[in-house]
Amino acid sequence: MEKVKVVSYGIGVIGRRLANHLLLKEGVEIVGAVDINPQIVGKDLGEVLGREKLGVIISDDADEVLSATKPDIVCHTTMSYVKQTHDQFVQILNHGLNCISTCEELSYPYATEEGAKYADKLDRLANEKGATLLGTGINPGFLMDTLPIVLTGVCTRVDDIYVTRQMDAATRRIPFQKKIGAGLTVEEFKKKIEEHEITGHVGLEQSIKMISDALGWDLDEIKVDPVGSVVLDHDAASDAINVPKGYNAGSMQKAYGIKGGKALITLDFRAYIGAPEEFDSIVVNGEPPIREKTSPCVHGDFGTIAMTANMIPAVINAEPGLKTMKDLPLPHATPVHMRKYLN
Amino acid sequence: MEKVKVVSYGIGVIGRRLANHLLLKEGVEIVGAVDINPQIVGKDLGEVLGREKLGVIISDDADEVLSATKPDIVCHTTMSYVKQTHDQFVQILNHGLNCISTCEELSYPYATEEGAKYADKLDRLANEKGATLLGTGINPGFLMDTLPIVLTGVCTRVDDIYVTRQMDAATRRIPFQKKIGAGLTVEEFKKKIEEHEITGHVGLEQSIKMISDALGWDLDEIKVDPVGSVVLDHDAASDAINVPKGYNAGSMQKAYGIKGGKALITLDFRAYIGAPEEFDSIVVNGEPPIREKTSPCVHGDFGTIAMTANMIPAVINAEPGLKTMKDLPLPHATPVHMRKYLN
Repeated sequence: MEKVKVVSYGIGVIGRRLANHLLLKEGVEIVGAVDINPQIVGKDLGEVLGREKLGVIISDDADEVLSATKPDIVCHTTMSYVKQTHDQFVQILNHGLNCISTCEELSYPYATEEGAKYADKLDRLANEKGATLLGTGINPGFLMDTLPIVLTGVCTRVDDIYVTRQMDAATRRIPFQKKIGAGLTVEEFKKKIEEHEITGHVGLEQSIKMISDALGWDLDEIKVDPVGSVVLDHDAASDAINVPKGYNAGSMQKAYGIKGGKALITLDFRAYIGAPEEFDSIVVNGEPPIREKTSPCVHGDFGTIAMTANMIPAVINAEPGLKTMKDLPLPHATPVHMRKYLN
Repeated sequence: MEKVKVVSYGIGVIGRRLANHLLLKEGVEIVGAVDINPQIVGKDLGEVLGREKLGVIISDDADEVLSATKPDIVCHTTMSYVKQTHDQFVQILNHGLNCISTCEELSYPYATEEGAKYADKLDRLANEKGATLLGTGINPGFLMDTLPIVLTGVCTRVDDIYVTRQMDAATRRIPFQKKIGAGLTVEEFKKKIEEHEITGHVGLEQSIKMISDALGWDLDEIKVDPVGSVVLDHDAASDAINVPKGYNAGSMQKAYGIKGGKALITLDFRAYIGAPEEFDSIVVNGEPPIREKTSPCVHGDFGTIAMTANMIPAVINAEPGLKTMKDLPLPHATPVHMRKYLN
C-alpha cells in the first residue's frame, strides 16, 4: 500500500514531537518540512530531530515545498491564533491541500466575531479548492469539548456541564512551567500577566462554543476569568523549579458559557507545581447524571500529537471545507497502516 | 419550525420509555405506533403510556402506519437479533424511511458471518431506497464501543483495551433482576443458562468488532465466555429479591478480541445484587495510558432511550445506508428543538 504523504509545517517543539511520531507510524511518509527558524532552515529534518538523515530539507519557502511534494495532508503546528495562521492556511488551501493544525483557535474559530470571519473565508476557500481543514489537539480539541459533547449523548436531559483539568506542572517540560509562572512571586506573576508575558490557556472560549453549538444552546455570553495565581501553603518543587510556600506555583483559569444568568458550561483549568492529583473530569448534571474522571490526566503534548496524527484519515476522507471535531466521525487511534483508514 | 415526525415501532418496556421521552422533547411528534401485542393493539398510545390520549392508535399493520404517516424517522425497539428484526427493517426501508433501532446486534452486525450477510443486504436496500439505518443504545452502542474508540484518539500507541461495566442490579427493574437470575440457587441458575432461559448480555461480540474495525485491528478471534454466576459471601437484597449468602446474586460475562494469542480487547460485564460499586471503566494501555471511570455507571434504560432520541438528527442528516456509531459524527444531547440539529 502506498504511504500517506505528509508535509510537516512548523518544526518547533510540537512539530518535532509530531514528526518523530509520524516517522514511527506505519504507512506515513514525511515528504517535506517547512519552518522559518533560520537556525534550522536548510538542515535535514532527521538531523534536527536527532536521528539519521531523512533527505527532507527544512525550507522556509512553503509554496515551493507544497508544489514539489504534493502531500496528501499538511500537518501544521505554528501558532495559536487564526489571525497569525490565516495566511498560512490560505497558502496551503490554495494548493488544494488538506490540512490539520494544532492552532488552538482553529479548533473552533466561531467563538469570536473575528475568528468567525476568518472561518467563513477559510471554509469558502477550502470548498472552492476541494480541500479539508481541521484544527484539533488535546485541549482544545478533545478533553474540554469533544469528550464532554460525546458524554452528553447518553443524557435525556442536560442541566449544566462542568469540566476540570488539573495538571501537576512538575511532570511537564520547563517551558510549560515557565508559561504558568511557577516559582515567581505573586507580584512578578501578576506583572507578567499584565504585560501579556503570561497569557493563560488558549482555547477555553473555543471549547465552550463548540459544546454549546453541538447542543444547540444559544448562549448569552462566554466569559473568561483572568488568569489567576495558585499559591500553596507549603513548599513544592519540580526537577527544575522550586516553589517556596507563598510563591506562585502555577495558574488557574475558569471560563463560563452563560445563559439567563446561569453557567450552563464551566471549564476549570488548573496547572501548578505540587497539585495533589492530576485528573481530567467531566460532570454532566442532568438525567442520568454523569460523573466521569480520567486519572492521571491525559498528557498534553502526547495527546496533541496523537490527536493530530489520528485525525489524518478523517480529514482526508471528509468532504471539503473547514471542519471541527464535532462535524467528523469518532476520533480513534490509528495503530495500523494509515492507508487502511482511508475510504 | 416543523416538528420531526416519528413512528414508534415497538411499544414494549423500552418502546414505552422512549415514547414518553420523545413526547417531552421539543420539536418531536409521534405520528404513529406499531406493535403486535394484542393487549395494546387498537388502543391509544397515550392511554397505554398512562397519559392523556394522543390520537395515535397502536396498530399491528406497520405498512399501513408507515404509508399513512410518512415519518422523518422510525424509532424501532422490538428484538435483539437481526435474524428477528431483519424483515421489519426491510419493510421500513422499502418505505424509504430512516430508522434508528435498539436491536443490539444491529449496532455492529459485522461481528458474525450471519450478521454481516444481513448487514450487506440492509445496506444495499437502504442505499437503493435513499434511507439510513442505525443500531444504537447504551450498551452496545456507547459504553463498551463508542466511548473506548473515542478515548483511543488521544493515544499515540495502543497495546490493549479493557472495559468494565459493573452494575448493582438492586437499583434496576425487576425483569432485569430476573434476567440475571438473582436469588436463584447456583444450580437453578446454571440450568436456566443451559435451557437458554438466561442468555446474558447481547452485544459483547458486536462491541469488540466495532472497536477492532475502528482501530483497524485484524483479530484472529472474538471469544465470549459462558455466562457466569456471581455468588457473594454475605446476604444481599433488592426491594424485590433476597439473595442469601451462597445463592446466585447475578451474572458476569467476559469477552475477548484476540490476536496472536493476546487479548487486545477485553469486555468485562458484571450485574448483580449487592455490587459494592457501580461503575463503567475504560483502561487503555499504551502511550499515554488512559484510566477512565464513570461512577456511578450510566443507567442502562435511560442511557438507551437518550442515545436513541439523541441520534435522530445524525441519522436523518446522514448519507443513505446502514451506518454504525463509528461512521457518524459525535453523539450529543439534543436539548433544544429537534429540527435545529438538521442540516
